Order: sequence, then structure tokens, then C-alpha cells
Amino acid sequence: MQGYGMRDSLKNLLKQFSDFDEQELDYILSYFKPKSVSKNTILLQEGKISKEFYYIHTGGIRTFFIDKKGYEKTRYIMLDNYIGTTLSSFISQKPSFESIQALEDTDLLIINHQDFYRLIKEIDNWKSFYVKILELAYSYQNRKIESLVTLTAKQRYDQLLNETPVFLQRLSNKVLASYLDIREETLSRLKSK
Amino acid sequence: MQGYGMRDSLKNLLKQFSDFDEQELDYILSYFKPKSVSKNTILLQEGKISKEFYYIHTGGIRTFFIDKKGYEKTRYIMLDNYIGTTLSSFISQKPSFESIQALEDTDLLIINHQDFYRLIKEIDNWKSFYVKILELAYSYQNRKIESLVTLTAKQRYDQLLNETPVFLQRLSNKVLASYLDIREETLSRLKSK
Repeated sequence: MQGYGMRDSLKNLLKQFSDFDEQELDYILSYFKPKSVSKNTILLQEGKISKEFYYIHTGGIRTFFIDKKGYEKTRYIMLDNYIGTTLSSFISQKPSFESIQALEDTDLLIINHQDFYRLIKEIDNWKSFYVKILELAYSYQNRKIESLVTLTAKQRYDQLLNETPVFLQRLSNKVLASYLDIREETLSRLKSK
Repeated sequence: MQGYGMRDSLKNLLKQFSDFDEQELDYILSYFKPKSVSKNTILLQEGKISKEFYYIHTGGIRTFFIDKKGYEKTRYIMLDNYIGTTLSSFISQKPSFESIQALEDTDLLIINHQDFYRLIKEIDNWKSFYVKILELAYSYQNRKIESLVTLTAKQRYDQLLNETPVFLQRLSNKVLASYLDIREETLSRLKSK
């Protein structure tokens, strides 16, 4: 697969969202800039404004916040070939209550807020792409609330095991427990079964 | 204000979301059908597919679900001049984990799923309207998660008191407590202070 770089991967991903032609994709891609970050790098600090939208080529990032007892809660995890950001602050351009952190050494393509919204005005397919991103993000959030309030710890673990087993292979117990909103001891017990 | 009916109210609301012209508004409004429901009517039962998008002219509705302990949780409340639905199922056209119920005798205008999405293809301003609805819904959800995990019961009550005091006047303690995710006794105690 030499020569088949991250820009082609992003193009292929975007085509799954909307009916882009090659010219549109080249134009859109011209706004994405590459960046490599090492594990644990903070890409966005809580309290700052989210100005970047990410494509993860290889590696992984998470969004997290601190709860009222001082514990980290991981809200969203993006591994290879995921796209996203801490969308709430990206939309409102108000300070984010979440931080973004690299979970591994990570290669990214980044488009900034201004260019992202310029493309919405310029390219109808990009607007359709944005609609799909919002629909998915909304549905994800709703499902997350649903899981947190209707499923037990074991049921949430089983759901993860079925739907995103790669998370179990790639993520530390600390991050995984904070994602499932369970204690690390509980996670270890569930894993050992 | 006689003669200034609910269709005009909806038109004025839509204008706040996108730059509709009168012709577009008349066309869009032709898809909205009026409906009056009495207090406690279930508009959508959990497990059914959400096929309607609501404008509340007068009255109020709520979306709610049942948590793992069997308690009702109110997720979203819409009073006079609000617009919305249980969006997750409306987007996916999969069964809803939430129900929708009238909190009072309520006058609605309703557009169905098929017409709603037809308008997205036909009218760019309606697509922009949909983008804004999704952005607001996403931000609301994110803020709700944030409140639930970072604020105490008292802080959530104070937030409500500042931002939507009308909820305190219009809603029963049962609904309000399930919205704030606190016990009715806690709510009574906070109210009495």
C-alpha cells in the first residue's frame, strides 16, 4: 500500500458520507493540514475554544472532562480512520468543558473552524457531510445517555465487547473504565470472566 | 392578537433559524397539520418509530424514558413556541427508547418524517434550518451530560431557576424532579428555601 497515503484514506472516508466528486475532494483536502503528535499530547485544553476538526489516520484521541468528584470521564474515543472533534465548542465557539488528548502516537489531518464553515457555504455536499456528522454525533450522545441510565456496568461492558472490541485491545484500563463510567476494579473483574 | 394564528407564529419562529422567503414559508407550512391533544396523551410510545416533528403552539410536551431501576427520566421539555421531537429515532427511523407525552392540553402543528426530509432536498434554507436544529440539539445533549456529571442537585436546580424559571411554574414536581434527575423530596427541599 505504499504511496496510498492519508489524504487518499480521508477522501475514501468522505465519499461514504456524501456524493463528492474528485474536484470537490481535492479542493476540500487542500484545507486539511497534517500533524503528528505523541502519546498523551493535549490537543485541546478544557476552557479553550475548539477550533480544529480532526481526521485520525493512525493512532487515537479521546475527549474527556472532569466530574464533580474530580474524576476523569472519557466521553468519546476516535481511533484510525475516525473523524470528529469536541463538537459542542466547535459549533458554539465558546470555551470547551472537555479536553482532547492523544491516546497513542497519532497522525492527523486537521481542518480549522473557519475553513470548515467556509466549505459549508461553498459546497453543498460538504453541508450534507456536516448534516450526517451532526446526526451521528447526536445519535451517539443520545445512545450514551441511554446506556448510562438504562444499562448496568456489565451490560455496558458487554455492549462494548460486541460493538467495539478493538477498544479492549488498544486502550488502558484507566481510559476504558472512565469511558464506561465504571471503576477500574469493576472493569478488571469483568475482563477476567 | 385575534387572527394571528399558529401558522404565523411558526413562520416567525422559522425565520429566526434561516433566511426563508414568504413563498418558501407558505410551501413549508402546507406540510404542517394541526392537532390538539389533551394532557397526558402519549404522542409516541417507547419502542415505536418517531415519525413526527412538532411545533408546540400552546401547551407543552416532554420526552422521557425509563431507567434501569424503573424510574421515569424526563430528557427534554418543550413549551409554547418550541420545536422538536425525539430526534434520535426520527433520524434513524429505528424504534425510540423514549416516549413523548403531553404535559398540558396542547395545540400542535405536525410535519411527518417523509415530508420533513423531502423539504431538505427541495429547499436549501430548510437544510440550513435542519443544521441549526441538529447543532442546538447536540449542544443541548452535551450540556445535559455535563450538568448531570459535573453539577450537584442544588447547582442543577439553580441553573434551571436562572435559565428556565417558567418550568417551575408550569411543571409538576414529579416531572421536574425527573428532569433534574433528583428525588422529589430533594426538589421540595430546594424549592422551600
